[in-house]
Parts: sequence; structure tokens; C-alpha cells
Amino acid sequence: MAETWVNSARGIGADLHVELDGPGGRRAALIRALRDAVRSGRLVPGTRLPPYRSLAADLGVARNTVADAYAELVAEGWLTARQGSGTRVAERAEPLKGGTRVARKAPTRAGGPRHDLRQGTPDASAFPRAAWLASYRRALQQAPNEVFGPGDPAGRVELREALTEYLARARGVRTAPGRIVICSGFAHALRLLFGGGVLRGPLAIEAYGLAFHRELLTSTGVRTVPLPLDEDGARVDLLARERGVLLTPAHQFPTGGPLHATRRAAVVDWARARGTVVLEDDYDGEFRYDRRPVGAVQGLDPERVILVGSVSKSLSPALRLGWMVLPQRYVDGVLAAKGEREAWASVLDQLGLADFITTGSYDRHVRRMRQRYRARRDRLVAALAEHAPHIEVTGVAAGLHAVLRLPPGTERSTVKAAAWQGVALDGLDAFRHPRTATSAGDGLVVGYATPSEHAYGAALDALCGLLPPP
Amino acid sequence: MAETWVNSARGIGADLHVELDGPGGRRAALIRALRDAVRSGRLVPGTRLPPYRSLAADLGVARNTVADAYAELVAEGWLTARQGSGTRVAERAEPLKGGTRVARKAPTRAGGPRHDLRQGTPDASAFPRAAWLASYRRALQQAPNEVFGPGDPAGRVELREALTEYLARARGVRTAPGRIVICSGFAHALRLLFGGGVLRGPLAIEAYGLAFHRELLTSTGVRTVPLPLDEDGARVDLLARERGVLLTPAHQFPTGGPLHATRRAAVVDWARARGTVVLEDDYDGEFRYDRRPVGAVQGLDPERVILVGSVSKSLSPALRLGWMVLPQRYVDGVLAAKGEREAWASVLDQLGLADFITTGSYDRHVRRMRQRYRARRDRLVAALAEHAPHIEVTGVAAGLHAVLRLPPGTERSTVKAAAWQGVALDGLDAFRHPRTATSAGDGLVVGYATPSEHAYGAALDALCGLLPPP
Repeated sequence: MAETWVNSARGIGADLHVELDGPGGRRAALIRALRDAVRSGRLVPGTRLPPYRSLAADLGVARNTVADAYAELVAEGWLTARQGSGTRVAERAEPLKGGTRVARKAPTRAGGPRHDLRQGTPDASAFPRAAWLASYRRALQQAPNEVFGPGDPAGRVELREALTEYLARARGVRTAPGRIVICSGFAHALRLLFGGGVLRGPLAIEAYGLAFHRELLTSTGVRTVPLPLDEDGARVDLLARERGVLLTPAHQFPTGGPLHATRRAAVVDWARARGTVVLEDDYDGEFRYDRRPVGAVQGLDPERVILVGSVSKSLSPALRLGWMVLPQRYVDGVLAAKGEREAWASVLDQLGLADFITTGSYDRHVRRMRQRYRARRDRLVAALAEHAPHIEVTGVAAGLHAVLRLPPGTERSTVKAAAWQGVALDGLDAFRHPRTATSAGDGLVVGYATPSEHAYGAALDALCGLLPPP
Repeated sequence: MAETWVNSARGIGADLHVELDGPGGRRAALIRALRDAVRSGRLVPGTRLPPYRSLAADLGVARNTVADAYAELVAEGWLTARQGSGTRVAERAEPLKGGTRVARKAPTRAGGPRHDLRQGTPDASAFPRAAWLASYRRALQQAPNEVFGPGDPAGRVELREALTEYLARARGVRTAPGRIVICSGFAHALRLLFGGGVLRGPLAIEAYGLAFHRELLTSTGVRTVPLPLDEDGARVDLLARERGVLLTPAHQFPTGGPLHATRRAAVVDWARARGTVVLEDDYDGEFRYDRRPVGAVQGLDPERVILVGSVSKSLSPALRLGWMVLPQRYVDGVLAAKGEREAWASVLDQLGLADFITTGSYDRHVRRMRQRYRARRDRLVAALAEHAPHIEVTGVAAGLHAVLRLPPGTERSTVKAAAWQGVALDGLDAFRHPRTATSAGDGLVVGYATPSEHAYGAALDALCGLLPPP
């Protein structure tokens, strides 16, 4: 590779490293070299550059090459050319002051806790790479060209059809492809519904739930009203003048019970009588261990319930794919909130997921994970029975987490001890609505899905070791 | 397959189609059949179901099977059980009233115009399926497990590193992986910056631009101030007390010229002097035909310019992947607006794109498309020279669209004639800021990238046929 140092060029006074055989030819190489020199500060603002002919002679290139390079850099604002004063380094082209090369941000999980028993994430090591790739490849190969153009904001019809069939079969959902809108997850659904003006507050929500959802609602201008919980789930009998209610009927998050049958019926009745809506967060409805899944409340009245689901627990949060099953009257509003074209969910991943569902790979994966998570739950229950029999475990009929009931007043110190010992988990209090009078007592929310298989035993040992004594 | 009609069961009075060998066993089959019967209205609310033993005898199954099925349906809210009155179909379990099976929504492009000369979309038929699949496969196979867990809201570091290198090389961008945040496109970037409270209005924007961006800003509460355009681009000398300016410096959208070098410098000076920011929409910077690309303004001062780019024009809008190159002081704010975990951009597609860039596939694709689009532009220019020599074509040095200057007063009728003849395109007026006094005159914005290769000739013929006479 022909390299030339043009430090001999009068007026520059800087090493200019020019790879004349580099990509793009001599002119491009010169532009690159000059730009780099200005950027790095080797050519300071105000410096006068040598005339074309001098530099051309130095470099052994045509004068036009240098003239073109100068013109280009003037056009880009690196250099200025004024009649009579020649070509100079522009005043504003200062080198970047420190800090540009900031530290490479570590991926979220790197440097994390020794044992991760936080709820909310599936076992990342169990992602079905081969089956997913097969679906993605098939989908991409079979896709019509229009797939690569602007996307339908409702989502690909292939995926909405696959979901219609799957949700009816697995979750008792009654819908049609025209009532499903694809989104990038539950938070996106909340943003579309409330930020998009489709729904308005005040919204009743369970007294215990994800702080993230509460904060998101608040930031969208929605007032949330906490709904107390008892052993039958959310006290929907206390619903009054709210404009809607957000529930986790299949498996109350995080306390763990299903919504009682009479309450399921009652909340739909309330929504009908008052012209309001039930928002059903079906976040882990597929993972029920001791009996068949409780169907979605949506099936009771598709005109009164919005069901929101995603693959974040069942497959991976990396895909950023979710769905909203809507009463007909909200479809247009949600689509308007989504925009004229698909602006969020990857259309290629949507097609991959459609194939993954219709070919049965999704069912197979869910079944496999259900077995794996059930085994983990059983190990958790067994470990506690052996090492901490005084600790009651609840909410274990379903889902990816359990609640360990602690003696009154011990939650905070136990969570602290856990952090101290490198065990990441949350206390129940982290999920409590700030304006509720009810308390679910002291407890730990233990996610048993996040550790990989080989790390789970050690995580359980660490957990048992930090629980308060009887 | 063993099928049984249980219409003989006393009290039901409806055909109940039960496939006892169906998936999930007899209990599941019975639940399904009963649920379907209620849904479809064959079992009306209030109907009393037969006692366990009768139905069990009818079906030839164990009593417990029926009892379990009833209990499940009670739990799901389809049936109610009251001491003394037996099991009945719940009152609220009415069949869905019409309309559930709404029409399958057609994909966006189906039933579209005969000739699509709208700007904004690349040739969907040119998506490099094989190369993309190869990158996606490699990325997925090599990905560490943590990829499938919660994502870093900044985006995958692999992609941010690839972009740092690529943008420096191709666009003269000066940045570092820690200053790049991945998003799902330009609109998402605007939402994060203004909706997330990182930037505030008023924002100066070019007098001609995408109405969608203006409306998005307005809906986020940002007042936009139109900046007149002349032959050197946006009149940045008119900037005053705005808190920032949004520009398309490489190729003004839609009028088509690059921002003049002195204006590039001047706008950065303005931002420095007033402590404001330049938002650089680098939407088609890679497609420059007659000379090498104009570098990004961002390179002049990385602390004063936010550059936003995406693959929507260069590869496909189906991927929903874009990037924000940020001054250091905005990084934390944008990440806070994005949320604790990646909630938007598909992490798998991010990895695919990182591989696609680092292996050179992206460069190859851009080069190939640049040739293709240049050839199309040349055909457009040639066709006009032959069939409508009185029509001036401007803005053709770059990008995926051209502006055809029309005689004064003919734009509206020409756009109407185009619609009438199945040619989709926009007039310049569709892009004009409603509060600007300046006018770019009458013109058509002709996107030449959208039609597939074989459809382009006919589209050009149609276009030439509808232009106003000299």
C-alpha cells in the first residue's frame, strides 16, 4: 500500500498520513487524511493549507485531485476558502474535546449479581435458536416483496391470523385478525391506549403490581386507583367511577393467585354496566402447572376486555413482539395512535413468529419451558421445605415466580441481606402501590426462571441461606 | 376419532360436538365443547347443565372428568354453580354479537395504486434476502445467552460499534459506541428527544418537510418554526431564539439540494453561541450520485449536533432500526426516556445488522442500490428530456426522489390527474409548513425507488403522460 507522509508540505506542519491506494482512490484518501488531521487536532483552526500545486507535487498526484479534495472539505465545512487568503482550516472544526471515546457500555447482565432471582425474565439460555432460525428463514424466503416496504401498522396479517387461532386454542380468547394489533410489548400497548387518547383515566389497578407500569401510566397523565387484593384476587367489587381496570387475572402479579370466577364475571359485568373496559395483562397465562390454564377473561366478553400479551415471558424479551386483542370500537383509535405505517415492531420478526406459531414450534417451546419451570418451582418448594420449613410459599400454581411469606418486619432486612450476598431479588413492598392502605405482608418475590439450569442449584442454596430464622 | 353428540343429555337441549380423542384428553375435549356451545349461543345464559353423573353416563367418561370440566368452566366464568340450583350457563357469557370475524385487513400495498411514485420507500424487491439471512444466522448462532434476556436500552454494543466505524467512514461522523442509542427509526428518535423531555421547543424546521414529522412534534407539544429555503438550503441565518433546528443537510427533503458549506458552518456556530442543538436527519445521505457524499454536519461539532439515521431507506423499513448519534450531555436523558430495558428495537435484528455491517454486506448493498437508483434517476431525466423537455428536474444529485418543477398554478390539477390515472405521487404543497410565507413554487415530488425494476418503465410512461403541456 502506497503511503506518504506529507509533513513536508509547507504550511501544514503536521503529519498527514495518506494511504493513496486506500479505498476510493487518491482523492478520497487525501480527503480522509485531511479530515482526520483536522478532527484529531493535528491541523488546528486557522491553519493555512498549502496551495494545490505544492501538495500535488508532494504527493505525486494531479493538481485537480487536490483541488477537488479541498473543494469537498470546504463543502463539508472543514475548510474555508476565501479569495486572497487561500484555503484554511475552518474555525469551528475544533477537535473533539475528550470524552468521545467513552467507556464501552457493558451489556445489562454483565457484572450483574451472582444469583439472579428477579422476576420477569425467562431462562435466556433456553431460547430455541435452531427452531427460531428455521422459522425466520422460511418466513424470509417465502415473504412477498411488499414485506420489505412500509408495514401495515396493525401488524402482518400472517401473525394476526396465527395469533387468532393460537389464542383461541390456548387461552380461550375470542377474536379475529382484524381486531389484533401488533405492538412491541405491554408498555407499548399502554402508551398506545393512553398516550394515543384511546382510553382515559382514572384507571383502577391492582394494589400490587409493576412499578414500571404505574409510572408509565402516570407519565401519560393517567391517574391510577389502587384496588385491594384478597385471597380471591383483586377486589373488583370495589370498582366505582374509574374508566377502566387493569388486571392480571391468570396469575396476579406478583402475589400469585388467579382471579376468582365470581370476580371474573363481576368485573365484566361492571365494565358492561358502566361502559368501561377491562385491560387484561396476560403476562404468563401459558405457564400454569397444576391444572390446565385458566382461560382469559377476554373470552367472557370480547367487547369489554382488551387482552395484551407478548412473547417476552414465553420466548424472549429480545424479540420485542406483543399483541393487543381489541374490542372492535378501539381498533381504529389504536391504529391511528400507531401511525400510518408500522413504526415499531420488526416486520421480519413478525413473520418469523407467525411461522413459529403455525408450525407448532411455539407450542413445543412453551411445553418444554413449562416442564422446566415446573421442575424449578418444585425444587424451590422442596428446598424451602427442607431448609426453611417455617417459610410459606404462595403463588406457585403458575408463572415464573413465587412469593415467600416472611415473618412480619423481616422483609427489608432480608432483601438487604440478599443484596449483600449477591442475590438479586425484590421484596413485596417494591410492588406496592404508593397510595394503597392494604398490605400483602412481608414477603420475597422470587423469580425462578432467570438463572440458567446449571446455576439454579447454587441460587437456591444462597436463597435458603439468607432467609430469616423461625 | 371418537365423536359423540350429547344432545341426549337432559337439560342441555343443544348439539354438543365432543371429540373425545382430541388434543388434551377427554376432560379438555369436554371443556372445549361446552365452551364452544356457550360461545356460539347454542347454550344460552341460564341454561341448567345436566348433573355430572348423567352427562358422564351419556359420554361414557368418569364422573370426575365431568366434575372437573364444570369446575374449570366455573373458574373461567362460563358457568355458575350455586348450591341447590345446580350448574348453569353464566348470565354474562353471551355469544359474540356479529362482527367478530371482521374482514381480513389487506396488507398495506395490496390494492394500491397502479404506479407508485411516492417518495420515501426503497425498492422492496431489492432486499438482500440471502445476505441478510446469512448475517442473521451467524449473529444468532454466535450470540451469548444474555442476548435473549432483557436488552440494554442503548442497543447492542456490537451494533453501536459497527455503526461508529461505519458512520465515520461513510458519513464523516465523529462518535463512539457510548454515544449511540439504537431506536426504531426517526419518529422514535423525535419521540425520545421531545416526548422524553431531553429537548424542548420551539424548534426551527425547514419550511418544506414531512408533514408526519411536523405533526409528531406538535403532538409532543413542540412548537415548530418554519425556516425558509433558498438555493443554498435552509436559511439558517434567520435562526433566532429557537431552542434547536431540524435539518436535512445532505439532501434537503423534499426540494433536494445540499445545505451550502457556509450554512453548515453557520448553523453549528449558531448552536454553539446560543447553547442550542442541530438535529440532523441523515435520511438518505448514502445515496449521492454525481460526487462523493457530503459528510454529515455532525462531524463539525459532535457536541452540538444530534445525527439520526436508519436503515429504512438504505435497506428496508421492515427492520425498524435506526440510531441516534448524541452529544455526550444528552446520552443519559435519552436512555432514561428509553426505559430501563430495551422495549423497542428487536435485539436479534440488531445483531443481524451489526454482522451485516461488519462483514461488508451493508456497503455492498448500498453500492448496488446506488447504481440502481442512479440508473433510475437517469431514466427519469432522459424520459423527461424526451417527452416533456419543458419540465425542469431538480434535486437529482442524491436520494430516492426528484422534484419536477411545474408551470405556476398547475400542481394541484396535475396531482389530481395523476390520482385519476392510478399514479401515486405528491405535489410540493403536501410538504409545505402551514405557517410559512415562502413557496417553492409548483412541483411534483417523484420517488423513483419504490417501483420494482420491471414496473419502472411503465410508471415513467404514465408520469410523462400526465404532465401539463408547455
